[in-house]
Amino acid sequence: MTTVSQPHVNVIHREVLPTGSSIALSARLRVTIDEAESVADLTGHLHDLVAESGVREGTLQVYCAHTTCGLVINENDAALHQDVQALLERLAPHSSTHHYAHDKHRTPAERRIHGERDNGHSHARARLATHPELNVPITAGALYLGRWQAVMLAEFDGPRTRELLVRAHDAAPRPPAV
Amino acid sequence: MTTVSQPHVNVIHREVLPTGSSIALSARLRVTIDEAESVADLTGHLHDLVAESGVREGTLQVYCAHTTCGLVINENDAALHQDVQALLERLAPHSSTHHYAHDKHRTPAERRIHGERDNGHSHARARLATHPELNVPITAGALYLGRWQAVMLAEFDGPRTRELLVRAHDAAPRPPAV
Amino acid sequence: MTTVSQPHVNVIHREVLPTGSSIALSARLRVTIDEAESVADLTGHLHDLVAESGVREGTLQVYCAHTTCGLVINENDAALHQDVQALLERLAPHSSTHHYAHDKHRTPAERRIHGERDNGHSHARARLATHPELNVPITAGALYLGRWQAVMLAEFDGPRTRELLVRAHDAAPRPPAV
Repeated sequence: MTTVSQPHVNVIHREVLPTGSSIALSARLRVTIDEAESVADLTGHLHDLVAESGVREGTLQVYCAHTTCGLVINENDAALHQDVQALLERLAPHSSTHHYAHDKHRTPAERRIHGERDNGHSHARARLATHPELNVPITAGALYLGRWQAVMLAEFDGPRTRELLVRAHDAAPRPPAV
Repeated sequence: MTTVSQPHVNVIHREVLPTGSSIALSARLRVTIDEAESVADLTGHLHDLVAESGVREGTLQVYCAHTTCGLVINENDAALHQDVQALLERLAPHSSTHHYAHDKHRTPAERRIHGERDNGHSHARARLATHPELNVPITAGALYLGRWQAVMLAEFDGPRTRELLVRAHDAAPRPPAV
Repeated sequence: MTTVSQPHVNVIHREVLPTGSSIALSARLRVTIDEAESVADLTGHLHDLVAESGVREGTLQVYCAHTTCGLVINENDAALHQDVQALLERLAPHSSTHHYAHDKHRTPAERRIHGERDNGHSHARARLATHPELNVPITAGALYLGRWQAVMLAEFDGPRTRELLVRAHDAAPRPPAV
């Protein structure tokens, strides 16, 4: 089920860019999820990175360079994650009776690269229910998220460790020192 | 049905930011929808805000800080809204026989905060068929929208009043006065 | 089937903007797809435009001004395209027995503008499975795409020729010459 264990989220790289760039801070988040399907809440880490960036007005960009998981902004509620998981199981089933060409047509060489695990349904679910990238406004030095909004990584092909790129764009960057 | 009454859209706050910022204009739109499900067309208001911003080349950012409605770019056609409503009723039903854990597991305290209204299906529909944020190019002083494109708020949990953040990002902001 | 013929992708306009703008390069891609449904891989063209732009750190913005096709980031795998096509045929069927109000309610005048072809299902599929706009990070002078990620146009209403706007945003633009 969706929320049995806690995902691990770590900031594994952070870089403050030189003045003169509108990217005030660039970071990579490493997210480890131990289940086949689960959701990792990134919101706290993103709040911290915005604070660290010093950006008052701008945009936080989050990018997921993967194809069987993706980004979501919605309520972080375990019951809701169950509902969405059941919904996606109906729309893009993962069962012994539903066959994905993506899985069936793999050559032995591809299986060595991708692993043996079938993930046609994972691609389909990421396509239907996630975003590869999100841009959240920063206003008055904080993420402009609604009361019920969390920024999450939805994993459909776990257990896996993923990396996300996070950059804080400053609308009023300091000019480069002359 | 989707389009019985007219939604009310008002610009409730607008702020021209100081020179030196790439955000030329920041505004909030208040959108009131009187039905359980409907679509509010924001396009006219967004065109006006771009004109007011004076931005020639840049990007209009629209952000929806809610979890049971969302943003859409597509054709604003009442028949098409009916089709999508019917489609979402098939995919994420709202009926007395389909139960969402999100609704069932609510405590009395949560019901006091959220209201008594069930909205598991609203979250699911927002996940499948909307975006929390959109960035539309501004070129030659106007929104770069296609002939059939409208920017809309799709409500799945009405009647409600929502607020959207709209910011015009200028690719060639004037430098701050020295 | 999805990938019978090769789509044609051409850069039909490119413009290097004057220094002082954070948009280093603006281009339009013309994409011709000869089937009713297919996928055009834009990744190679986007890599070339980023290289031409000279942007080291920034964002590539891709915008699709159409309502019956859309943008996707996922794996470019013919078998996977088949799977997604079959999935969307289940969710938003295109058949003689499933009627879309969008198609049924067209007046003769609208048919003269839109063409005779029904495309209610095309709108629905674009809504469910694509994005109207995407922003891909540029880092170290290259698109920050994952190993399996391709940026694609998914057509649901072909054969058609489409135009996409592509702009490279530079996080450290050169100041205007004094």
